[in-house]
Amino acid sequence: MFESAELGHSISKKSFDKKVPILRANLLDTQYDLSQAANFPVIILIGGVDGAGKSETVSVLNEWMNPRHIYTHAFGELSDEERDRPPNWRFWRALPPKGKIGILYGSWYSAPILRRVYGKTNNDRLDQSIEKIVRLERMLTDEGALIFKFWFHLSKDQQKQRLKALEKSEKTRWRVTPTDWERFELYDKFRKISEHTLRQTSMAASPWVVVEGADHYYRSLTVGNIILEAIRKRLDKPQRQRRVEAPPIVPSIDNLKLLRTLNLRQKITKSKYESELEKYQGKLKLLARHDKFKKMSSIVVFEGVDAGGKGGAIRRVTAALDARYCHIIPIAAPSDEERAQPYLWRFWRQLPRRGRVAIFDRSWYGRVLVERVEGYCTPADWMRAYTEINDFEAELVEHRSIVVKFWLAIDKDEQLKRFKEREKTRFKRFKITPDDWRNRKKWDEYESAVCDMVDRTSTEIAPWTLVEANDKYYARVKILKTLCREIEAGLDK
Amino acid sequence: MFESAELGHSISKKSFDKKVPILRANLLDTQYDLSQAANFPVIILIGGVDGAGKSETVSVLNEWMNPRHIYTHAFGELSDEERDRPPNWRFWRALPPKGKIGILYGSWYSAPILRRVYGKTNNDRLDQSIEKIVRLERMLTDEGALIFKFWFHLSKDQQKQRLKALEKSEKTRWRVTPTDWERFELYDKFRKISEHTLRQTSMAASPWVVVEGADHYYRSLTVGNIILEAIRKRLDKPQRQRRVEAPPIVPSIDNLKLLRTLNLRQKITKSKYESELEKYQGKLKLLARHDKFKKMSSIVVFEGVDAGGKGGAIRRVTAALDARYCHIIPIAAPSDEERAQPYLWRFWRQLPRRGRVAIFDRSWYGRVLVERVEGYCTPADWMRAYTEINDFEAELVEHRSIVVKFWLAIDKDEQLKRFKEREKTRFKRFKITPDDWRNRKKWDEYESAVCDMVDRTSTEIAPWTLVEANDKYYARVKILKTLCREIEAGLDK
Repeated sequence: MFESAELGHSISKKSFDKKVPILRANLLDTQYDLSQAANFPVIILIGGVDGAGKSETVSVLNEWMNPRHIYTHAFGELSDEERDRPPNWRFWRALPPKGKIGILYGSWYSAPILRRVYGKTNNDRLDQSIEKIVRLERMLTDEGALIFKFWFHLSKDQQKQRLKALEKSEKTRWRVTPTDWERFELYDKFRKISEHTLRQTSMAASPWVVVEGADHYYRSLTVGNIILEAIRKRLDKPQRQRRVEAPPIVPSIDNLKLLRTLNLRQKITKSKYESELEKYQGKLKLLARHDKFKKMSSIVVFEGVDAGGKGGAIRRVTAALDARYCHIIPIAAPSDEERAQPYLWRFWRQLPRRGRVAIFDRSWYGRVLVERVEGYCTPADWMRAYTEINDFEAELVEHRSIVVKFWLAIDKDEQLKRFKEREKTRFKRFKITPDDWRNRKKWDEYESAVCDMVDRTSTEIAPWTLVEANDKYYARVKILKTLCREIEAGLDK
Repeated sequence: MFESAELGHSISKKSFDKKVPILRANLLDTQYDLSQAANFPVIILIGGVDGAGKSETVSVLNEWMNPRHIYTHAFGELSDEERDRPPNWRFWRALPPKGKIGILYGSWYSAPILRRVYGKTNNDRLDQSIEKIVRLERMLTDEGALIFKFWFHLSKDQQKQRLKALEKSEKTRWRVTPTDWERFELYDKFRKISEHTLRQTSMAASPWVVVEGADHYYRSLTVGNIILEAIRKRLDKPQRQRRVEAPPIVPSIDNLKLLRTLNLRQKITKSKYESELEKYQGKLKLLARHDKFKKMSSIVVFEGVDAGGKGGAIRRVTAALDARYCHIIPIAAPSDEERAQPYLWRFWRQLPRRGRVAIFDRSWYGRVLVERVEGYCTPADWMRAYTEINDFEAELVEHRSIVVKFWLAIDKDEQLKRFKEREKTRFKRFKITPDDWRNRKKWDEYESAVCDMVDRTSTEIAPWTLVEANDKYYARVKILKTLCREIEAGLDK
């Protein structure tokens, strides 16, 4: 992959000086149009060999374009807030919104490559990381991001000459440290591992561009031209949905649906409820005091039919938890900042630190429920969401989060009864809106969406618990019981 | 202050059970109206003696109200991201948006009181902290926040009895640690210091309520009632601007204005510019490499007349800095999340970590410039903003940030020339909008606003540098020179 980047590319200063003003004017123009259209973000990843002009290129781009609309991020040591979340959290929060350019120096490639070079992981682990990167980038490009990946390369010889040249001059000698020579010793290994990584992660929608890094003029112009052309092209021809056509949704031919197999009539007596509630709330309290609990984060998702009793159930859970370390996150319409990002972004930003509990009152599953049924996104969008959501939850679980998901099911009659009750009760009136009545008319469509959701996202690592909720007592006890069991299992791991 | 909270207040379970359902219904109703009106946030601070029911009250409030619209925050150890910013940053980012309730457990009172109790500070430092709290709360209430401050109290005797009772029972013994007894030894000191603090911070708009903490029923009902009444009252009678009437603005009678004393015609030659630019960019580069620089954050503010050359000047500054550690923050219209917070919030959230540089392209001074001139806020609002801004900058500087502020001044003819030029140049066309022409018509009003701004916010700790900017070369060199000087001075401190 690096052959063409060892040919000794260079261009003259004269040619550079002639071309730059035109390139700059075009870049500024394009950047302006990008910010006006504001329908996709541009993500530029910078990687490569030391001394191959990575940070210089970042500077040049900031100089040529309007730096006010560029977000440049470098990733050093993890902060403790970052360490408390999945590894990608730091990148998620650095993503540029639509219409802006984000330059990620280092990016999600650095750690996997360097850890492998220094022998801290093996090839299998590297390939695992690569697979995750592929999925992350696919999600971003599917969400509309334009991704550039520049790899700046120097041959071993060029690298050696560079270090020697720096050492020669009084002025630059301080820039060469023993670490530089140590890293030089690893050159071959680094090259081999990088090559493997680049090959595996060069995708149609986010290919690598390897740039020979020795000549400033060549390097900068190459990068500038590529960025200009690709943004321009995307602006001029809004990409036809490159996305997979989703197959048509075929309703189940025998009318046998998962949800319909639930026995919603299960109930328990009030006295049984009270004793069980006390028992499992007590248990949950104890679990939350466990030392290991403080080292994990817990994420509890509540979804369900309107008036299914989410609120009441959540209150029974939070009653057993320390309100100071437990956040309820109600999901309503996204804010404008959230709309300018991938749809998962507004959940990423709410991920709890270790030792905390986040309770999502509705969640990322909106994508495959309300957004699907109401047509807020295309079939291809919600179809790929199943995989994206599974990936997201896998990342949470791998990072020692406990993920528990509840679907609260009631039948149509029970819903009607509750709607009417809500309209009558003064302090419940705000729990019923015209939207609820509208959704009710689409009962069957929602039912299909829920069945698909459970089929596709009830995974070994984050299974759905379907809760028969016609009887609130039964539902709440089942939820608390399940939560205790899942947390216990999570702590045991 | 604690006398009434040592009378042995209590109410019966029977009375409690009778009152709670009504209170709850009213609270839920009120909370709903609050979220619908969404015109002010509710901030509830929880403080007091150990064991006086602080966390229990937090739980009760979350139980009685809809916890989905309550943000409960506890403040433990500072995270490293918090340590990198001014002490109040963690509270700023925990503030609830308009229409929501935020419960701050601990809050800005904990550290000053506890540090004094443990002898880590003296009375003078405590009073300094108190003064800052007073100013912070005044700003929040002026911005519309409804603040409750509950102090839960136990007499020394009650405290002692409580610890002994806990120790007696097998079940609760573990809850009493040696630290608890150590803290008990400090009871008198804690009481004295708290009393002083409470007295000094009990203000008309944010008074303390001391609640006797021994009896759960009394304590919870008291807090619930107070919250209900105050939110209800505010909702029913939108407060008439409690704010100070601003005195009418009297134009200077001799037409002698600060800005007019500037000699805008100062200029330097191109060759001088180039050599000076190189010199000071080089110097800035060196300064940014200084070890101490990595322990400070730098905040550079650019304000100026439209077409005053901010963008070009900023680029000359960033060219000397590592783009990875330097963010330009362009300030345009606030997002909806930002509009739901105090006006300074959108700047708080952009404060850089240590070792980083944030360049604000327009800033919090918008409040006393465009918002004043265009009437986006009341005279009382922008009048108090001067003090709030000075407080904000003082907090930054105290936390070892370097704050440098530039005003770029050009005259009316020069502006016209630049506007026309921009309209002609292809890649500059986006730098000129109808807004610019509109603002130009209000030249005199802006001029007055700028003069007032400089008079009121050019402080010893964060002075304004007025930049004569008719000649771009002159301006850029002055800016770089000043910046180097200020950073050098900051590093020397």
